[in-house]
Amino acid sequence: MGLERSWVESANAPGADFPLNNLPLGAFAAGGGAHCGVAIGDSILDVTRLEADGRIEIAPGAGAILGEGDWTAFIARGPGTWARLRAALTEMLAEGSEDADILAAYLVAQADVAMAMPVRVSEFTDFYAGRHHATNVGTMFRGPENALPANWLSIPIGYNGRASSVVVSGTDVTRPRGQVKDADADLPRFAPSARFDFELELGAIVGQPSDGMVSVAEADEMIFGYVLLNDWSARDIQAWEYQPLGPFQSKATATSIGPWIVPKAALEPFRVATPERARALLAYLHEPGPMLYDIALEVALAPAGGRETVIARTNYREMYYSSAQQLAHHTTSGCPMRVGDLIGSGTISGPEPDARGSLLELSWGGASPVTLEAGETRRFLEDGDTLILRGAAEGDGYRIGFGSCTGTVRPARELPDWAKD
Amino acid sequence: MGLERSWVESANAPGADFPLNNLPLGAFAAGGGAHCGVAIGDSILDVTRLEADGRIEIAPGAGAILGEGDWTAFIARGPGTWARLRAALTEMLAEGSEDADILAAYLVAQADVAMAMPVRVSEFTDFYAGRHHATNVGTMFRGPENALPANWLSIPIGYNGRASSVVVSGTDVTRPRGQVKDADADLPRFAPSARFDFELELGAIVGQPSDGMVSVAEADEMIFGYVLLNDWSARDIQAWEYQPLGPFQSKATATSIGPWIVPKAALEPFRVATPERARALLAYLHEPGPMLYDIALEVALAPAGGRETVIARTNYREMYYSSAQQLAHHTTSGCPMRVGDLIGSGTISGPEPDARGSLLELSWGGASPVTLEAGETRRFLEDGDTLILRGAAEGDGYRIGFGSCTGTVRPARELPDWAKD
Repeated sequence: MGLERSWVESANAPGADFPLNNLPLGAFAAGGGAHCGVAIGDSILDVTRLEADGRIEIAPGAGAILGEGDWTAFIARGPGTWARLRAALTEMLAEGSEDADILAAYLVAQADVAMAMPVRVSEFTDFYAGRHHATNVGTMFRGPENALPANWLSIPIGYNGRASSVVVSGTDVTRPRGQVKDADADLPRFAPSARFDFELELGAIVGQPSDGMVSVAEADEMIFGYVLLNDWSARDIQAWEYQPLGPFQSKATATSIGPWIVPKAALEPFRVATPERARALLAYLHEPGPMLYDIALEVALAPAGGRETVIARTNYREMYYSSAQQLAHHTTSGCPMRVGDLIGSGTISGPEPDARGSLLELSWGGASPVTLEAGETRRFLEDGDTLILRGAAEGDGYRIGFGSCTGTVRPARELPDWAKD
Repeated sequence: MGLERSWVESANAPGADFPLNNLPLGAFAAGGGAHCGVAIGDSILDVTRLEADGRIEIAPGAGAILGEGDWTAFIARGPGTWARLRAALTEMLAEGSEDADILAAYLVAQADVAMAMPVRVSEFTDFYAGRHHATNVGTMFRGPENALPANWLSIPIGYNGRASSVVVSGTDVTRPRGQVKDADADLPRFAPSARFDFELELGAIVGQPSDGMVSVAEADEMIFGYVLLNDWSARDIQAWEYQPLGPFQSKATATSIGPWIVPKAALEPFRVATPERARALLAYLHEPGPMLYDIALEVALAPAGGRETVIARTNYREMYYSSAQQLAHHTTSGCPMRVGDLIGSGTISGPEPDARGSLLELSWGGASPVTLEAGETRRFLEDGDTLILRGAAEGDGYRIGFGSCTGTVRPARELPDWAKD
C-alpha cells in the first residue's frame, strides 16, 4: 500500500506528515472554544462543524458528539465508531471525491490556529520501559553492574503521574521550584530546578474501559492511538524526593503531548516486535504479535532567538515493553482503566550516544555537555529554550507523521514572601 | 459550644455521629441514580429533592446544581456557597424550626439506602506523613538506625495514586493478583496477594483549584472537608515492584472512602497543632496555626460470619504533616490542583503497639499475628474479612462522627487461561 491521494494537494507532497493514510485527530481553538479536526496536508478538516451542519453522522442516533471541543466522547464509542469515521473521512477526502467543493469550505490552515487538548486526560501513567534508558540512568546512579533493578526484566515498571499537569504542545512550561539538596549539604534548599530536563516518549490513548484484568491482545484493542509526549523532569528535585515512594513533584510541572493523536489504524503497516527477551516473561505479558511500531523520532532544541539543533534521533522500536504490555500489567491488580487514560511509554533511548531521549543521558548527568549549532552548550535546559519532538513512520512513498510537540521553558515565577527562608 | 439541638430527635442522642453540629455531605442511591444528602441523626436529608422542589436555593442564579447525584458542582462553587448552605441547613434542621413538618418528608433512613460516591474524585494523591508509621515500616525494612529516609523530616513524602480505583464504603474489594517474588526464588510468580492489608487514613477533599504555588494557609482554605480512607495495599506485590519508582499495582486494587465528607467547618473546634519539628522545615511549609484535628480513630476486623474485633485505636493528631502542608507541597512544582482531588493523609499510627494503622505494623510483618475475639489470628487479611474504620471528634456533649468506612475482601477472580504460566 502506497500513498493514498487526496484532493487536498498538500497531503500528497513528498514528506508530508499528514497524507490521507494518516488522518490524526486534534482539536483547535475556534470561536472562543475548540473544535475537533483531522489533519490533512497543511490543513485541518473541521469535523465539529461538519457534524453540526449535518454533513457527517459520527454516532448514528446519538446526536452531535463533538460539541465539547475534544474527541473524548467519540473515542468512548469504541472501535466500530472509530472505523466508521475513518472510512467516511477517507472517502470524503480522497482524490475524486464528489464532495470536494463543499468540504473545501471546512478546511482551516494549520498555520492559522492554535491547537488545544485533543482528549480529556483521565489519568496519566508513566512507564520506565526503555532498556537503554533504564541502563543509562542505572549506570549513572548505581554503576554498570547494578544498572537494571532486579525487577526490571520481569515487570514493566510504571508509576502514576499527574493528569492535571498534562498540556498540549505549544504551551509554555515554567521552570519549577522545589526542594533540592546539594551533595555537600545536610539540609535541602527551596530553589528553582537547576537540572530541568525533557523526556522523549510516546503516549498511548486508552480508548475503551476495563474492569478486571485484560490480556495483551485485549489491551492492544483498547488503545485508540498514540501521541508524542514530553515528560518534563526536574532531576535535582527528583534525586532528593524519590525515595522511597517514587517521583512526585519532579514530574508534576508539566507533561506535553503532541497535538495529533495518530490512530492505531494508521500505524498498522509499521508494527514491529519487541526485542528478544533477556528473561522469560510471565504468561500474562506474552504478546500475540508485534506490538511496537517503527516510528523514527527526533528531539531538537532551539535556544531563545536561535536556530534549532537536533540533539537526538531514535526509534520507538527500541522499547523493551509495548504499550499493550504496559496496559495489561496496569490491570493486573483489578485497577479500572478509563477512556482518556494516557500511558507514557517511558523515555525512548537507542543504543547510540546520540540516540538518548533525555539531557540527563545525552550530557551523562551533566558531565558531557551537548553542543548546539551556534556553539552554545547544554547540560540541562535553560530559560528560553524551546524543545521540539518529532516523529514519523516512513511508508512506501508516504509517511505517517505525528507533527511536532513543542514547549518553551519560562523562568521560575517570583518567590512569594511566605516561601522565603 | 455544646450540642446544637435538632428537631430530628436521633441527632440529639448521646454518642450520635451526626448531630446538627456536623452536617456531613454524602450521596445515596435513589431512583436508579443517586441523590445528595446531609446526615442528621440516623437519617439523611435529601438535598437534591429539596433543591428540585425549590425549597432551597444553593447557588442563586445557577439553577439546580445537585442533579448529577454528587456534591462536586456544589463544592466547586467555593467557601461562600459552603457557608451559605451550612447556615441554611442549620436553620432548617434546628429545634423549633417552622419548616420541620415539611422537611420531615425529605428525610430518608440511613438504614434503608446504599451510599454512593459523594464526590467525583479527580485525582488521588497518597502521602506517607505519619512518623510512627514511617518509623515502623522503616525499622522492619532497614533497621531502627535507618528507619526514616533522609528526606522524611523535610518533605511530606507523597505519590500519585489511582483515582479510578477509589470506591465508596460498602464496596467489596477483590483480592488482587500480581507479581510476587519469594525470598528464596530468583524469579517472580503471578499469584493472588498473600499479604493483603489495609491502611487507616483520613482523606482531604480539595474544594478549590490552584494554579501555581500556594501557602499552607491558602491550602487549608482550599480544603472542603475530610473523609475516612482505607488504602488497601498488597504488601508482597509492593515489595517486588516498588523500586525504583514507587508503589503502583500494589495500591491500585481499591481505595475505600467513607460515605460522609465532614466539612472543615464542623471540625474547627477540634484543631490541634502538628508535633514539635525534629528538624526545622523550609518556610513554604510553615503553618500559620493548628492544622491537624483531634479525631479519635479505630479499626475493626470482622471475619466472615463472625463478630468484629477492634484491632487498633489511634488519633489523627498523631500525623507529622497536616493535609494543608501536603497540599502546599503538592503545588510547589506548579502542579495544578482541581476540585475533587483526594489527598490521603498517609497511615495514621500512634506510638503504642495497638495504635498501628495497618496489619503490616500490627503483626510486625507477619511475625506477631493479631488475635481476634473468637481466637482466630491474622497476619494479613483473609477472604471474607470485613474491615471497618470509624472516627469521631469528641466535643462537649456532642461528637462529630465520620460514620464508618467498610469493605469486605472477596477471593481473587479466577485466573484466565492466557495468564496461566
